[in-house]
Amino acid sequence: MLQTAPEHIQIAKVVHHELEKVERIFCEQLASDLPVVNDLCHHVERYRGKMLRPSMVLLTGLAVSGEPCDGSALLPEHLTVATVVEMIHMATLVHDDVLDEASVRRRGATVNTLRGNETAVMLGDYLISNAFHLCSRAGDPLLNEMLGQVTNTLCEGELVQLSHRDDLSLDQATYIEIVRRKTAALVGVSCRLGARFSGADDALQDAMDRFGSSLGIAFQIQDDLLDLAGDPDVVGKSIGRDLATGKMTLPVILHLASEVGHARGETLRLIEARDADGLRRRLIEDGAVDRARAHAEELVSEAKLELERLPMSSARDLLGTLADAVISREA
Amino acid sequence: MLQTAPEHIQIAKVVHHELEKVERIFCEQLASDLPVVNDLCHHVERYRGKMLRPSMVLLTGLAVSGEPCDGSALLPEHLTVATVVEMIHMATLVHDDVLDEASVRRRGATVNTLRGNETAVMLGDYLISNAFHLCSRAGDPLLNEMLGQVTNTLCEGELVQLSHRDDLSLDQATYIEIVRRKTAALVGVSCRLGARFSGADDALQDAMDRFGSSLGIAFQIQDDLLDLAGDPDVVGKSIGRDLATGKMTLPVILHLASEVGHARGETLRLIEARDADGLRRRLIEDGAVDRARAHAEELVSEAKLELERLPMSSARDLLGTLADAVISREA
Repeated sequence: MLQTAPEHIQIAKVVHHELEKVERIFCEQLASDLPVVNDLCHHVERYRGKMLRPSMVLLTGLAVSGEPCDGSALLPEHLTVATVVEMIHMATLVHDDVLDEASVRRRGATVNTLRGNETAVMLGDYLISNAFHLCSRAGDPLLNEMLGQVTNTLCEGELVQLSHRDDLSLDQATYIEIVRRKTAALVGVSCRLGARFSGADDALQDAMDRFGSSLGIAFQIQDDLLDLAGDPDVVGKSIGRDLATGKMTLPVILHLASEVGHARGETLRLIEARDADGLRRRLIEDGAVDRARAHAEELVSEAKLELERLPMSSARDLLGTLADAVISREA
Repeated sequence: MLQTAPEHIQIAKVVHHELEKVERIFCEQLASDLPVVNDLCHHVERYRGKMLRPSMVLLTGLAVSGEPCDGSALLPEHLTVATVVEMIHMATLVHDDVLDEASVRRRGATVNTLRGNETAVMLGDYLISNAFHLCSRAGDPLLNEMLGQVTNTLCEGELVQLSHRDDLSLDQATYIEIVRRKTAALVGVSCRLGARFSGADDALQDAMDRFGSSLGIAFQIQDDLLDLAGDPDVVGKSIGRDLATGKMTLPVILHLASEVGHARGETLRLIEARDADGLRRRLIEDGAVDRARAHAEELVSEAKLELERLPMSSARDLLGTLADAVISREA
């Protein structure tokens, strides 16, 4: 995801090294005495991709600590939280694939395709359960409470989104509120907790939460755009699932908000016919794709402003690079 | 579930009163600012039935405290744990109904039938998440860890069971191990925690865990029997789901273990044809239903022996009555 500039190679190495520890904690936590459970968990480990959320925990932790930007500034709690947020994210991927009837993720078959919806539901539950179990072992009740609150919010976002399936009147404010809950809250708390365990005061924790939250919304808009117009070979997962499953995305919402009469009727016809190619062409021609992209760029700019509260450091710089990468990514 | 003898009316009233508090905590925890989420949670509250697990928490708590058996012996932690275990149980019901493609529960339509599998998956996640969130608010990290461990075990049991779907060679030991994980562990920990918050030492906590665990296995065997030969109007949920979803139950396992040659072939034919009536008749004639029932009775006797470690009290007596009711119930 990151094109690392020469001056950031050192800090990128630190993060990479710490992420390897996160992967080890992840695997250790999921290890079971039951071979069938281990097989499933090994499959899920293949889903691990950008590790955006754990990277956010580590980088905000390092950035709040300031120089020197080496791993010594991180506590065991940073690594625990980084693993927990990744595990929660993985659980949502497994359950999302059931919801979206998706067949491909990270160029491999989804659990629901390989082993059926039932196993995918239970495996997602196993991941959620392990996330909370790992979290509790940090021995900080407030940490459990904050993450429990975030997963409540996340499920609420998904439930509201489901209640708006095929709702062509969904407006931008409701869309953003759904995304704030189902995607942005977890990225926000990742940044908040990274900062918290490095001793940030409440104001700085709030700022880091806003940084993550804005970035999370931008991330989702970019996901919308990739699902609409991405290259499936590059994206590495099923494309066109939003249209197929009746999920309203920002380009569609922006387009419908500006169309009336016959033109609007034509778009509705394309949506009802699940005509992905026709819809894509129309949204590009209309400029709705560009407007959605511009909105994501604005969110990234807002997010980067929050970084100015941090002391100068290469970790802070890398958070800025990461923010840009959220919307420049093609996968 | 309970036929209360005259000498137990006072303690039954205490439990009833405390269970009402549990219901209130349950509703308060799930309350959301989103109407769509509240509607779904109200629907799930209709599933609440016997409240076996919260009753176990309260009664073991009271029984360990000894006389006087009034609510004053219970701590806020007893009520929190009672609510958490019920919420975890509800989550498993909602996800089990997706797994079993069940259409009726407690004489009402299941969430998956009313709102689709996607909403049922997410609602189950919301319940799990809220269970952990509520649990964390008790401020006892060990409580979170113990319950996280139990939900890990519960999911493992479900995953192993799914891996044995339509496995006609499943043996009794593996069946019991699956049930120990997916059903008994949560009942066991309910009793353990009830005892723990009343100051029980480790040995007594272990005994109460064994009491709950044996009872949990007996409960599952009774569920198997009701799914096979219960009256759907009395049971209040879909019948014959075990056979329809390829789930092996104790009567079938005991029967197949004793059959060879042509007779065995005839049973396998009934299973493959999903012939519920034919299978039921065969298992009753063969005595497999009686043998399964006898096994459940033995487990209840074992469980009741553990109660002798408790001081004499009406709460202890009621735990014994509850143990008997687990296998005499018809719903």
